[in-house]
Amino acid sequence: MKKHNFYAGPSILSEYTIKQTAEAILDFEGMGLSVMEISHRSKEFVAVMEKAKQLFRELLNIPDGYSVLFLQGGASMQFCMVPYNLLSKKAAYLDTGSWASKAIKEAGLFGEVDVVASSKEDTYSYIPKNYKVPADADYFHITTNNTIYGTEIREDIEPGVPLVADMSSDIFSRPMDVSKYALIYGGAQKNLAPSGVTFVIVRDDILGKMDRKIPTMLNYQTHIDKESMFNTPPVVPVLAALKTLEWYKDQGGVEAMHKINLEKAGLLYGEIDRNKLFRPNVGDESDRSIMNVTFVMDENYMDLEADFLAFATEQGMVGLKGHRSVGGFRASIYNAMPLTGVQALVDTMKAFEQKN
Amino acid sequence: MKKHNFYAGPSILSEYTIKQTAEAILDFEGMGLSVMEISHRSKEFVAVMEKAKQLFRELLNIPDGYSVLFLQGGASMQFCMVPYNLLSKKAAYLDTGSWASKAIKEAGLFGEVDVVASSKEDTYSYIPKNYKVPADADYFHITTNNTIYGTEIREDIEPGVPLVADMSSDIFSRPMDVSKYALIYGGAQKNLAPSGVTFVIVRDDILGKMDRKIPTMLNYQTHIDKESMFNTPPVVPVLAALKTLEWYKDQGGVEAMHKINLEKAGLLYGEIDRNKLFRPNVGDESDRSIMNVTFVMDENYMDLEADFLAFATEQGMVGLKGHRSVGGFRASIYNAMPLTGVQALVDTMKAFEQKN
Repeated sequence: MKKHNFYAGPSILSEYTIKQTAEAILDFEGMGLSVMEISHRSKEFVAVMEKAKQLFRELLNIPDGYSVLFLQGGASMQFCMVPYNLLSKKAAYLDTGSWASKAIKEAGLFGEVDVVASSKEDTYSYIPKNYKVPADADYFHITTNNTIYGTEIREDIEPGVPLVADMSSDIFSRPMDVSKYALIYGGAQKNLAPSGVTFVIVRDDILGKMDRKIPTMLNYQTHIDKESMFNTPPVVPVLAALKTLEWYKDQGGVEAMHKINLEKAGLLYGEIDRNKLFRPNVGDESDRSIMNVTFVMDENYMDLEADFLAFATEQGMVGLKGHRSVGGFRASIYNAMPLTGVQALVDTMKAFEQKN
Repeated sequence: MKKHNFYAGPSILSEYTIKQTAEAILDFEGMGLSVMEISHRSKEFVAVMEKAKQLFRELLNIPDGYSVLFLQGGASMQFCMVPYNLLSKKAAYLDTGSWASKAIKEAGLFGEVDVVASSKEDTYSYIPKNYKVPADADYFHITTNNTIYGTEIREDIEPGVPLVADMSSDIFSRPMDVSKYALIYGGAQKNLAPSGVTFVIVRDDILGKMDRKIPTMLNYQTHIDKESMFNTPPVVPVLAALKTLEWYKDQGGVEAMHKINLEKAGLLYGEIDRNKLFRPNVGDESDRSIMNVTFVMDENYMDLEADFLAFATEQGMVGLKGHRSVGGFRASIYNAMPLTGVQALVDTMKAFEQKN
């Protein structure tokens, strides 16, 4: 049976990414060797790294003066690398979920942290507005998409100080203006590659202003100088990232992905709003994530929660169970999820409504 | 043509590891999904992580009181994590090569570093002996195998203070007494998996004695508490590591690997010592690495260096060029290199001698 993969992360990747990666693992570019067992300094792998960076730049229209890095450790490592490199006295953070709150905790080890707003008291079900970012903050940190709660900052904001964004789960989901950001980072395991590689886009001129000594591996400048090859990069995740980027280009780039993402999200939110059995977790439409759609049973049908999950599982849907802190359901509909997958979920919701 | 892979790292992996990893990327355990796109908290992936740790313990006979961790960042990240977690006042280091020297540099950010001995002046062509480790050192750090120079500490030493070892390139090459070490770490891309996962074996009771604040991701205790799942682990490298560990067990464990490693190294060093065209880089037999065999042209045949490399390449040998700081050749004959591969190289050396 065809599986519909709604996992929040690691999550669905394009068939092209999966097949090409498997092929490279068996025999990389006709070398008679696996991509897993060749030197990262071989011309064949250096070309992978170069092409991945170049496509990253091309697809996101990254201006000159920014570096693209492929590192390790996930967004969680960036929670400490960002303040290690950028927090001199004070940083401002927006608290929009549990990942944002982990980033805030980590920054506290390095200096003063001003949490300008939080939606924690309402289980992070909206994006705070009308906050004020102090003009003397070294940077302002946001988490653009909150996978657990299903909220998203879907526009490039201008806080008046250098903007740092964790875009682990919505990079490449929409066209964006990179020039409005000082640093963008994310784990790859949503819209890019399997887990194990972390992307960083950094404006070069914000670095080198710290007094503190930064360990070599935690210093962005190390990786800029060595073009992400200071030490051995994670070759399979980088190769898979390249394949996803090639697929994006072939699909028409981020503009095309955005168009279909809006269509997918519109279809699913439409059904949640219509179907009497369900209600959305996020009320404000402008805050709704187009990557992670969270919903719960309507209060009149709470007893059907386990039944719906079982019914959807029978239809080949996986990964629909909501995070324990929100409950209900979460359909992660990242770039690689086709419209037909979302349609299958909507059909399942309709059929379940008919049954009940 | 059959390729013989002598790359120093990333490097040869067993056919079993390669095929099983490719299969899991196409369809993991009949789930109808790639291992790259399932949640790391799915029961299927949790089982991978658990089995890998359990086999690690079994193959190295790791005593109770030690944790096995799978992290990211490579040995280079450990160069800072070790002192972050263990260096209170002073640490002792043995300088046996460029990786050891990078570890020394990093430790210097955290406290006093006593380099008890170095073979740097002789291009690291031997392992220093008769050094004295200060009894008040927090730990003594060694790099057991020096891939660039072809030297190796092939026995478990007892320095009288907690012993920390970078075993990136010789873990699983011989039986060892883990109880003599406080912490062992390494990048996986030699005897374990593709790059992107870092193993750490740590005696739990040496942790928690620091005054300094340790960032969450750099604190070993974080990963012990969360069983290497604090954040998303690198799923493909961990899966591949499990496959290599399964293959080791099937081959008869580290005792069996050691026996064949000695045979392979004996065969190749024997030919280097015999063949008039070549001479070994490491004179003292007890210092010679059984993982990386370095050799150069004899001084009377220096002009044949490029010719030999071209000749060997024609025979399907890849990765034989020596590191620029040593020159000549380096044959990396890790666990996954079969005796037939080493025999093919020896035959090539003999044939080249005949031609000249």
